[in-house]
Amino acid sequence: MELPDSLSKLVAALGALPSIGPKSAQRLALYIAESPEVVAFKLSQTLVDAKKNIKRCTVCFSLTEDDICSICCDVSRNKKIVAVVEKMTDVIAIENTGSYKGLYHVLGGLINPLEHIGPDEIRVKELFDRIKDEEVEEVMLALSFTIEGEATGLYLGKKIKEQNPGVEINRVGSGMPMGADLTYADVATLARAIESKRSV
Amino acid sequence: MELPDSLSKLVAALGALPSIGPKSAQRLALYIAESPEVVAFKLSQTLVDAKKNIKRCTVCFSLTEDDICSICCDVSRNKKIVAVVEKMTDVIAIENTGSYKGLYHVLGGLINPLEHIGPDEIRVKELFDRIKDEEVEEVMLALSFTIEGEATGLYLGKKIKEQNPGVEINRVGSGMPMGADLTYADVATLARAIESKRSV
Repeated sequence: MELPDSLSKLVAALGALPSIGPKSAQRLALYIAESPEVVAFKLSQTLVDAKKNIKRCTVCFSLTEDDICSICCDVSRNKKIVAVVEKMTDVIAIENTGSYKGLYHVLGGLINPLEHIGPDEIRVKELFDRIKDEEVEEVMLALSFTIEGEATGLYLGKKIKEQNPGVEINRVGSGMPMGADLTYADVATLARAIESKRSV
Repeated sequence: MELPDSLSKLVAALGALPSIGPKSAQRLALYIAESPEVVAFKLSQTLVDAKKNIKRCTVCFSLTEDDICSICCDVSRNKKIVAVVEKMTDVIAIENTGSYKGLYHVLGGLINPLEHIGPDEIRVKELFDRIKDEEVEEVMLALSFTIEGEATGLYLGKKIKEQNPGVEINRVGSGMPMGADLTYADVATLARAIESKRSV
């Protein structure tokens, strides 16, 4: 069935968002179309407001409404440790654990030669400058355990060691997730868990 | 972790949409915040456009950009049959089967005493007027197989029979879904399937 033009456009715009499939997009568009005007207008205004007000922290490049984000401003945080992450959602995930009290650096992507993303396309220079200029003693790489994440981690580790031999470089541990059953673990995860065995 | 204010508002607005949970809302909001400006502005404009341009067909109350929708305007469709549905998505679902060539009537809800929705809160009067004024010979009730759907169907069937004894009233069949295994059917569905047995 062909939908009215402006409804089709709304379905397409919603369907372009991540993890919204064609069926969800249609359901959302029809929900909005059948709701009182205020629903669509409020959502529309919220989108514009968010885009206008949100900018990147000039220190760590996470999202904020101020020049410097609340984490970078927080005097109680340990400024000697910088966690390097790919994107803002990783910052939120780490903050939600409550077990990290250092600062962050949001790269804005991972090195990916197939997609023509090299070190110059992500905030690598800004990271090196921070390590040079600030009192950073430890860099904790908290990147995805994917080919791109591993490649980016290797590159950063090598470069930071060359430029700042005194800085300690760590990587968040990998292995079996909590609550998982060994029998059903995939080989790559289990192999990594065996490699990273620890004394008890 | 506390998100910047305008980002929290965007998460809340997205999370208010159906089937978008708090995690999805946060992921979508961050995706939009991290995307180029055009993504948010285009989505915002599409929402406003859809809401401005989309109205209800004055005949069947489905969504359209014109006064009368494309289905009601289509001379090839059988104007003697009207399918009564709850909402626009039901029209789309039936159209997608390709096996119905009559017209529709979108009630805009179902009778639900617990939510204080009676016959006057949905487009029941408009349906009765249509049946009286137009050359309707058959009403096909295509309502959900829920308590509200059954109650609405019973009410409509009774009223239409009283007012227009000549009009045939049907209901879409219920029973086992295609491809289903009898063993795993729920009792209500299987009982209904047995009641509605047909000669082969």
